[in-house]
Amino acid sequence: MRQPIITLTTDFGLSDHFAAAMKGVILGLEPRARIVDITHDIAPFAIAEAAFVLAEAARCFPPETVHVVVVDPGVGTSRRPILVRAAGQYFMAPDNGVLSLIYVRDEHQVRAITAERFFRQPVSRTFHGRDIFAPVAAHLARGVAPPRFGKLIFDYERGDFAAPTPNGPRRWTGRVLKVDRFGNLITNFAVDEFASVESGPFIITAGRRRITACVRSYAEGPPGGLFLIAGSSGFFEVAANQASAAKLTGCKAGAVIRLTAPSKA
Amino acid sequence: MRQPIITLTTDFGLSDHFAAAMKGVILGLEPRARIVDITHDIAPFAIAEAAFVLAEAARCFPPETVHVVVVDPGVGTSRRPILVRAAGQYFMAPDNGVLSLIYVRDEHQVRAITAERFFRQPVSRTFHGRDIFAPVAAHLARGVAPPRFGKLIFDYERGDFAAPTPNGPRRWTGRVLKVDRFGNLITNFAVDEFASVESGPFIITAGRRRITACVRSYAEGPPGGLFLIAGSSGFFEVAANQASAAKLTGCKAGAVIRLTAPSKA
Amino acid sequence: MRQPIITLTTDFGLSDHFAAAMKGVILGLEPRARIVDITHDIAPFAIAEAAFVLAEAARCFPPETVHVVVVDPGVGTSRRPILVRAAGQYFMAPDNGVLSLIYVRDEHQVRAITAERFFRQPVSRTFHGRDIFAPVAAHLARGVAPPRFGKLIFDYERGDFAAPTPNGPRRWTGRVLKVDRFGNLITNFAVDEFASVESGPFIITAGRRRITACVRSYAEGPPGGLFLIAGSSGFFEVAANQASAAKLTGCKAGAVIRLTAPSKA
Repeated sequence: MRQPIITLTTDFGLSDHFAAAMKGVILGLEPRARIVDITHDIAPFAIAEAAFVLAEAARCFPPETVHVVVVDPGVGTSRRPILVRAAGQYFMAPDNGVLSLIYVRDEHQVRAITAERFFRQPVSRTFHGRDIFAPVAAHLARGVAPPRFGKLIFDYERGDFAAPTPNGPRRWTGRVLKVDRFGNLITNFAVDEFASVESGPFIITAGRRRITACVRSYAEGPPGGLFLIAGSSGFFEVAANQASAAKLTGCKAGAVIRLTAPSKA
Repeated sequence: MRQPIITLTTDFGLSDHFAAAMKGVILGLEPRARIVDITHDIAPFAIAEAAFVLAEAARCFPPETVHVVVVDPGVGTSRRPILVRAAGQYFMAPDNGVLSLIYVRDEHQVRAITAERFFRQPVSRTFHGRDIFAPVAAHLARGVAPPRFGKLIFDYERGDFAAPTPNGPRRWTGRVLKVDRFGNLITNFAVDEFASVESGPFIITAGRRRITACVRSYAEGPPGGLFLIAGSSGFFEVAANQASAAKLTGCKAGAVIRLTAPSKA
Repeated sequence: MRQPIITLTTDFGLSDHFAAAMKGVILGLEPRARIVDITHDIAPFAIAEAAFVLAEAARCFPPETVHVVVVDPGVGTSRRPILVRAAGQYFMAPDNGVLSLIYVRDEHQVRAITAERFFRQPVSRTFHGRDIFAPVAAHLARGVAPPRFGKLIFDYERGDFAAPTPNGPRRWTGRVLKVDRFGNLITNFAVDEFASVESGPFIITAGRRRITACVRSYAEGPPGGLFLIAGSSGFFEVAANQASAAKLTGCKAGAVIRLTAPSKA
């Protein structure tokens, strides 16, 4: 028996009925579905954070997994639901840039989801996760072919948070994509792109603090001191050994991170 | 292979072993069970909140789903565990009113669960979720007929939070059932019952604030301003566009909401 | 169709991609796996708390369950991943004492996991949950025999938090293993070992407060007053009826609890 995998990434939290309602709809239409929560704790409306968490999680899942993302400041307005094919998997989300890190990484095809016959009726004004995304994901997992949900589009939204921008000679301006649970600041400086940083010298400025050391494991860093580390996500992180880099620097998701280095790679 | 669905709604949180212990007991007795968390983040002992979240989630699940609710200020005292048949599904809970919104909505049969041979032995004094509700849910999911768990009863508890009460001509006093993650105040004013509000005029009083506007989507509301909206749950919500109505009004779950309107529907 | 059960206990939280990444890896290798979260909300690096939650949850799961624990202040350093057979189940964790309560309770065999051919390649420096523990758990669940993962070892770490220590005649010094969601202090005084306490007299000192009453259910305790209760976990808890014992005593996990009693059992 094939057990299709459907993942959920939302900013609904877990104290409301929202996430469970989506699961109920999915299981009603496709009882074999294996539903995996990626997270429901995206900060409300935080598109870059959702993009990062989804992209990181997705590459650990097998082919044909259906990833559903519902983080949407514009719910109830006219932005389109989309269905993306990339890296042998499927991605469904509102067309607000939340899949940008997938677009950067992989070849992709994007469809606008317009086939209302697959929606849960009546479609509410405020809960498209339950009424559009959940039932379409279930039908897709059951084997309905992607073209039946809607046509290819090419004017989909691309976020502007995917990569650092050059800012003078040997200087780049990046961003904190996410603060993880331990207070590590995950930046958008990709380890592959900025490989020279691992062998130094470099200067990272994060809030009030300057970081000039790069270590190979969290435990190597001086307790309480800040350092750079190549995170398992493929991005550099500003971290501290058994302490919170977010507290030490005062940086939150979205904060500016400046890099000065002799070269990128 | 039939895969019965069992949902869990508790105030156990997710940092303890309690929810997982229930799942272990269920899977030991019915390995095919699909266990879905509705939420474990009900505020401790908050019966009305649990009633609301369960009722909203339940109607998205397929027939024969077994819903288990363990929110129980009185655990260890003499209140009965009950098994309810309603809307083609099953509901198990302590008899403390937590199923009241199900009773209001649907025809129902209520049984006291007394058949100790289905309990996990020895039954602890403090953890009926693991020792009574989990094993009975698993046996029910396996196909044990409801009458084998206990007899029908008619003196079960009904909560008093299900509907607003009239309070003078054209005035009603309601309650906040729940504050959702975005700070929206979910009231017990049902959209169907108070349909006139959508076309106005009306006055809602929530804490220190008066609300006189009703919009059709969160994004339509003025950023930072309060408005009423017909929520996807079928109840009116006091909300604010990308802001917290709970903070703006100072209202929490249980707070009084007053409505003045020319008529109900 | 056999559906092996794999549980996860980590300090990753649920707002990052870490837990989901482990699930993706597991499902890619063993699509039939039933993955159950015990908790991902262990306080960062809190080994005793993880040990307690795991041990409590594990005994509710059926034989052959594979329990994976990733709570590891030393990730990236040289401590070994281990695979333990105990009580008819499997346990995988870093060798840092987090399985100590299992060792105390049950006969056990411990292996160092060294067979890199079962790892996800390349093994990152910072995310052994995804690259070592998840794939090894999946292979074990698929039926790979334990000896193929590595050899038996006997010098594994045992934690020092498993039991109270005598401290003069009729006095013992114990610890708070965990503060549960309701603020109850779960101590390491086992009910079986200190049975005399239930019939009194005794004096427990917790922070600034002395407790001399033992009750049989939370509801029996005076509202707002502190009391001792035999918790469902088999340890005595310092608790308060509908109030937080942690707040009333000022005690956190790890705090000292002193007992004076005429005898143990």
